[in-house]
Amino acid sequence: MTLTSPDTTAVGGRPVVPRRGALRPLGLGEVRVTGGPWARRQEVNAAATLPHIRSWLDRLGWTANFAAGHSSPDRRGREFSDSEVYKLLEALSWEAARGGDPAVDAAVVELTGLVAAAQAPDGYLGTAFGGPGRPPRYGDLAWGHELYCAGHLIQAAVARARTAGPDRLLDVARGVADHVCAEFGPDGRQGVCGHPEIEVALVELARVTGERRYLDQAALFVERRGRRTLPRHEFGWSYFSDDVPVRESTSLHGHAVRALYLACGAVDVAVDTGDDELLRSVAAQFDHALARRTYLTGGMGSRHTDEAFGPDFQLPADRAYSETCAGVAAIMLAWRLLLATGDGRYDDVVERILHNVVATAVADDGRSFFYAHTLHQRTPTAEVSDDEEQLGFGGGPRAPWFEVSCCLGNAARLLASLACYTATADDTGVRLHQYLDAEIDTRLADGREVGLRVRTDYPDDGVVTVRVVKTDDRPWSITLRVPGWADGAVLATTYGRHPAPVGDVVVHRNFAVGEEIRLELPVRPRFTAPDPRVDAVRGCVAVERGPVVYCAESLGDVDLDLLRVDPSTPPVDVPHGVEVRARVDHPADAPWPYGAPATPTAGAHAPFTLVPYHRWARRGPSTMRVWLPAD
Amino acid sequence: MTLTSPDTTAVGGRPVVPRRGALRPLGLGEVRVTGGPWARRQEVNAAATLPHIRSWLDRLGWTANFAAGHSSPDRRGREFSDSEVYKLLEALSWEAARGGDPAVDAAVVELTGLVAAAQAPDGYLGTAFGGPGRPPRYGDLAWGHELYCAGHLIQAAVARARTAGPDRLLDVARGVADHVCAEFGPDGRQGVCGHPEIEVALVELARVTGERRYLDQAALFVERRGRRTLPRHEFGWSYFSDDVPVRESTSLHGHAVRALYLACGAVDVAVDTGDDELLRSVAAQFDHALARRTYLTGGMGSRHTDEAFGPDFQLPADRAYSETCAGVAAIMLAWRLLLATGDGRYDDVVERILHNVVATAVADDGRSFFYAHTLHQRTPTAEVSDDEEQLGFGGGPRAPWFEVSCCLGNAARLLASLACYTATADDTGVRLHQYLDAEIDTRLADGREVGLRVRTDYPDDGVVTVRVVKTDDRPWSITLRVPGWADGAVLATTYGRHPAPVGDVVVHRNFAVGEEIRLELPVRPRFTAPDPRVDAVRGCVAVERGPVVYCAESLGDVDLDLLRVDPSTPPVDVPHGVEVRARVDHPADAPWPYGAPATPTAGAHAPFTLVPYHRWARRGPSTMRVWLPAD
Repeated sequence: MTLTSPDTTAVGGRPVVPRRGALRPLGLGEVRVTGGPWARRQEVNAAATLPHIRSWLDRLGWTANFAAGHSSPDRRGREFSDSEVYKLLEALSWEAARGGDPAVDAAVVELTGLVAAAQAPDGYLGTAFGGPGRPPRYGDLAWGHELYCAGHLIQAAVARARTAGPDRLLDVARGVADHVCAEFGPDGRQGVCGHPEIEVALVELARVTGERRYLDQAALFVERRGRRTLPRHEFGWSYFSDDVPVRESTSLHGHAVRALYLACGAVDVAVDTGDDELLRSVAAQFDHALARRTYLTGGMGSRHTDEAFGPDFQLPADRAYSETCAGVAAIMLAWRLLLATGDGRYDDVVERILHNVVATAVADDGRSFFYAHTLHQRTPTAEVSDDEEQLGFGGGPRAPWFEVSCCLGNAARLLASLACYTATADDTGVRLHQYLDAEIDTRLADGREVGLRVRTDYPDDGVVTVRVVKTDDRPWSITLRVPGWADGAVLATTYGRHPAPVGDVVVHRNFAVGEEIRLELPVRPRFTAPDPRVDAVRGCVAVERGPVVYCAESLGDVDLDLLRVDPSTPPVDVPHGVEVRARVDHPADAPWPYGAPATPTAGAHAPFTLVPYHRWARRGPSTMRVWLPAD
Repeated sequence: MTLTSPDTTAVGGRPVVPRRGALRPLGLGEVRVTGGPWARRQEVNAAATLPHIRSWLDRLGWTANFAAGHSSPDRRGREFSDSEVYKLLEALSWEAARGGDPAVDAAVVELTGLVAAAQAPDGYLGTAFGGPGRPPRYGDLAWGHELYCAGHLIQAAVARARTAGPDRLLDVARGVADHVCAEFGPDGRQGVCGHPEIEVALVELARVTGERRYLDQAALFVERRGRRTLPRHEFGWSYFSDDVPVRESTSLHGHAVRALYLACGAVDVAVDTGDDELLRSVAAQFDHALARRTYLTGGMGSRHTDEAFGPDFQLPADRAYSETCAGVAAIMLAWRLLLATGDGRYDDVVERILHNVVATAVADDGRSFFYAHTLHQRTPTAEVSDDEEQLGFGGGPRAPWFEVSCCLGNAARLLASLACYTATADDTGVRLHQYLDAEIDTRLADGREVGLRVRTDYPDDGVVTVRVVKTDDRPWSITLRVPGWADGAVLATTYGRHPAPVGDVVVHRNFAVGEEIRLELPVRPRFTAPDPRVDAVRGCVAVERGPVVYCAESLGDVDLDLLRVDPSTPPVDVPHGVEVRARVDHPADAPWPYGAPATPTAGAHAPFTLVPYHRWARRGPSTMRVWLPAD
């Protein structure tokens, strides 16, 4: 790891600005997504999702909780509903910078005013606790989510400060953070929040403000975690990541989003305090989770009951939880580890989650959302009404709103800031991490201005063209990533075609304006098999194409659970998907489903078309399978 | 179906006394278990489990809730804690009759007095609702469990009346039932309880008392169910079986225990009102659940989140819920359908659950209990302290007590009354349904006294010897059951040896005292494979031996998840279990568990010993698998 210069300048539009690391992140001011599916998703996010979220927050009274001041007896929503307002504020802040729409900027200012009005003179901000007729502040650290909400408020303020400069929201956030430090400092309450989030927020606030004590408080929260200060619960202390000190754990465990947010905060603390032991520990925990506790889609969390990681290789397709928020949180963690280590494996993780969790989560119209991401839908998905709040988490198909609606704001803030996760700078040049149509204009470490234009139909097509639009007469480097699946990639430059092995491909030279580099990734369908220890999908294959996972979807025409694939005939591209050869099995219906082992049935295979997983459940009630039993 | 004479005589010691049906149940006065593993379990139940339950009820204050009267502000336990006192009362009532210990009888009288003291003048009985400082009666039908508790009180009174004659407890129960009828009658509250149980209790009370209106009220509750009168909930109306009218459903669904209790009540109503359509519907629903929603062990309920049946074939081994209570409830339902139809398939179900759920649930010392019955334990079971109440349901290993402690009393009342589920009489003689050492003395339909002595080491050994000890000079029949797995059974009588095909084997003749019939069941280990639609265990085999499911258990010496069995070498008996040939696979540890399909590894197989599933987790922390991947 090399040290980069600390960069706490206000306006750069970057979500994460570590004080050191292998890579320097670029911000919204440096990278713009200009076309392709992600640009369309960003447009839908701006035009539909953000207003949709606002309208539900208003309709359910979650915004009015702030306006009502400190003593409303009829507060609405769950104890963490404030955080949804804050996440919208964060998403709007990124969007104001990305899209440049003054109306979005005005919405940030208006919401800031609403939130600020509810702040107590001592800095405390929260509509569910404290004040007349409410439970006391911090009386229920396990479930109250007060520090969790504070964290999201701070993240919103950081986003605003980094896109529009310091403003009133940052003042509000500093008040909140100062209050947290006073209450939970070394001599204060010796507790942690049941839901991590404050840690990652405080580090970034320290980076924005230059205030070391926010970092110290975050470090304190990380160190306090895992010492069972939270009350005993039927889900166990592991649910709160409070069973084992962070640096002593060997894998991410317990509630997936809690574990991932905490890991992000721990990486941030480790990077900024020089705690390499902690950094190595969290990286090893994430690597363990990737190797043994992650779905093919990159989704994490295999248990509905406690929204938790299961033990190694417990990855049931039909009960996959794989919450949208866990996807966003895993991207946050992978991104932090990428910046710290420069290891391109983390890019593969980000890419996988983007294309198979985030892209799946949001409906085409941007107004309904998957909360959980099953990999196997046995019975047709239910029809969900446009105007009905789903109770609880919502294990069903995309829905307009959830009683626990964390996933919507999480997807929205990620989509609005997506450009920031696609490119970085290192000591010698620019690195591309995700492939999409983009304009990149930045300064190198030595101050030189360089510019790139990226053009691609990825992931439909594997050709990525990078054109140099600004340079000078000195050499620098462009680094491209060859994903783990892309065996046989080719790099074409003016000097010819060269094999591009998996990993980083560096082109270092004195570029000319207009010069193009072309990366050809072998995007074609392939069969994928699971580790034999993943019991749930033994004997099955899946189909992937580039970073995209495919699935069989049936609108009632085929019983997918009877499908048997011929694994000896490779899948091929067809106009609207990928074709495999499969047959429909017809097991005998017996009164008891267990009996003497029988010879498998056989039958002729016929073409069967799979569709991208992220396209499923968009054509009405359907069943679906990612993993298909192989003959 | 033939009509049997209605039998509402008080003292017969039978849990279920239908007004009509193919078979006439025998009671504790007619069947005694005299030896073997079930007799030992009954002794442990009497000597250890019943006092254990009482001591925890006292320790936690759940009995004191009654003594404290109607206005205690510090009531202890969950809203359904009264039902645990009632289930103990029921279990003690059966045990008093079974074991004949006057101290147990005295305990029934004492508990009856305690409970009776809390009854309101209008008959209402319950310590959680009504009265000063408590929520109003019936204000929370979904979760209040008031009618559920009333049902268990009534069942206790029925047990007492049928073993000791009508007493104070029956008066209390009539008061409760009269109150329920008044409140929820045709012109009363148009609601149902969130947890069925009152239905089955009211029918039996009608049978004991001859009061038709209890039956009518039960029928009304069954008809009202499925009309969504309960509030919307994140688990859906199916959780409460309130989504579809009972007779219109096609499979058991939703919360397993709720569904099974309701089905029992529906069968009872159908039998006693002559509603054959309802009877056929519930039988078809149970048959569907057996064919597609039941574990190899006979366990039901495949989801932890809502303790529910999943969709067809969703039967994850490692997340099997298979609650002990669902096992007891499925025995209750199978027994009712057996009595109604005479179909011996239901005996197989009872046997499977007894040997693999009930026998597994209780520790050898009778003082700790499985709540859920996983079929695959990936990480070593936790150590559970002797004196610590488990919060919630307890998904872990056997524990002494649970915050939701329904399973203990359910196992206890079943074990104390077990003899009643082993034999019946029909028009021409006696039928044996479960094989254990027993004495059977009863009267035939025509009034003749007959007696049998059954001697067996079943299920260790398959020989069952039935000796006639009382008869007269007229012919009658002895019917033996050949279980579904027992292909090749032989019946040996004084007239020679005859093949005994699966199903009922009837010996009808003029028996002589001392005459023996010998059934030889081929109890030997066998491989069993799942229906190919059970995704969770594709490519695996299990081993069964007679009715007993076997498992691999490891106390740390072997990573069971790497075990691969040779399915071409049949399992064989060895001194302490069953031996298969297996090898330990060594998959490569990769940073990502999905990749190009690879040729399976191979290796030499060596002997590996399996143990009965019901013996697992009795030797300290261990891992376990029922289903073993086959090479």
